[in-house]
Amino acid sequence: MLQTIRIREKLLGKNDELAAHNRERLDTAGVFAVSLCGSPGSGKTTLLERVIPALRLKFRIGVIEGDVETDRDGRRVAALDVAVTQLVTGGACHLDAKMVGLALDNLPVPLHDLDLLFIENVGNLVCPAAYALGENARVVVLSLTEGEDKPLKYPAMFRKTDSLVINKLDLVPYVPVDLQEMEAAAHVVHPGLPVFRVSCTTGEGIEPWIDWLMERRACWKK
Amino acid sequence: MLQTIRIREKLLGKNDELAAHNRERLDTAGVFAVSLCGSPGSGKTTLLERVIPALRLKFRIGVIEGDVETDRDGRRVAALDVAVTQLVTGGACHLDAKMVGLALDNLPVPLHDLDLLFIENVGNLVCPAAYALGENARVVVLSLTEGEDKPLKYPAMFRKTDSLVINKLDLVPYVPVDLQEMEAAAHVVHPGLPVFRVSCTTGEGIEPWIDWLMERRACWKK
Repeated sequence: MLQTIRIREKLLGKNDELAAHNRERLDTAGVFAVSLCGSPGSGKTTLLERVIPALRLKFRIGVIEGDVETDRDGRRVAALDVAVTQLVTGGACHLDAKMVGLALDNLPVPLHDLDLLFIENVGNLVCPAAYALGENARVVVLSLTEGEDKPLKYPAMFRKTDSLVINKLDLVPYVPVDLQEMEAAAHVVHPGLPVFRVSCTTGEGIEPWIDWLMERRACWKK
Repeated sequence: MLQTIRIREKLLGKNDELAAHNRERLDTAGVFAVSLCGSPGSGKTTLLERVIPALRLKFRIGVIEGDVETDRDGRRVAALDVAVTQLVTGGACHLDAKMVGLALDNLPVPLHDLDLLFIENVGNLVCPAAYALGENARVVVLSLTEGEDKPLKYPAMFRKTDSLVINKLDLVPYVPVDLQEMEAAAHVVHPGLPVFRVSCTTGEGIEPWIDWLMERRACWKK
């Protein structure tokens, strides 16, 4: 026996205006900004730990870390010797453009001394989807342990992303998951979405995603 | 380099009043209600699929399923031949007491024909923590693939739960996770919290959690 009730979505405020302002600041400073979203433990910070050591040979990198509590992620990323601002939201379940603007005001280095800015959102597959931050590209990190159906169950997040990183490829032999079905689910809600299968632990599959990121940046500069 | 900024938590509305009203309705009807919270893919629905076949031999069971989109979880649980109401929040990142009240009004069977009600929240380790639903016990399901530090990073959720189910024990050999550290992190934010290590896939460790649930229910009846 099953009954289904739909509850209407509330409208958002004027976050978009503030996001546009952030984007303008970033563009003026020549900074390409990439935001990362995903569930708790999907591997967002580990992805940064994997790609920053390679990217910092070429680019001056900054990171804005968003967490409900603790600066654990900020400390992990700062250990890579890049400029990090940790936003502790104190209960808020997502970053918004206002918080990111505050972080831009409080980077450990001047904004125009950076080339590439990563913004890691609070671990949450729902709320961050609705808030543009001013980023040039948004990336969702999904752990394959979360199950094939997540794009269908959390469609807004997968609709509003520019690429999908399916992480923890090293666990494929041990988890009953069908990656083709997972990708198909993502393409139901977002046809044509670029999908990358990676293991942030072993490094497998990371290069193609970095290539994608560099292509996005190359297009933005033109 | 690392800077840290704290943003203040907004105060909640009068959800608590509505939750108290739900609790009163449940008590009057003789229904013991248990809510499940956790990240997307932590195994909340799989836990229900694992325990309901055993529990329904003794109890008349109802389930309220909360999802942002789709009735997939509702259909999975309804296949176990119990009364299910699926709440599709249409973007809202958590259940609140008002939604649960609506679900109680729209169960496929009269409330007083149930003994045990499970309420599965939206997959989200942040927002649901703040909203009492009227449940008698709250349970957090945490997949060990999410990492040891999650209780420290999402403390509200672990503070406001009555037990913690650490799931996916079958993956221990393949994941670099320290379960003692995970439990210790939970006990930092919630000293004395009962913790159960289970695999909803194999059934390992499920019995002690069911025993805990039955003890809670026995105390509630007194």
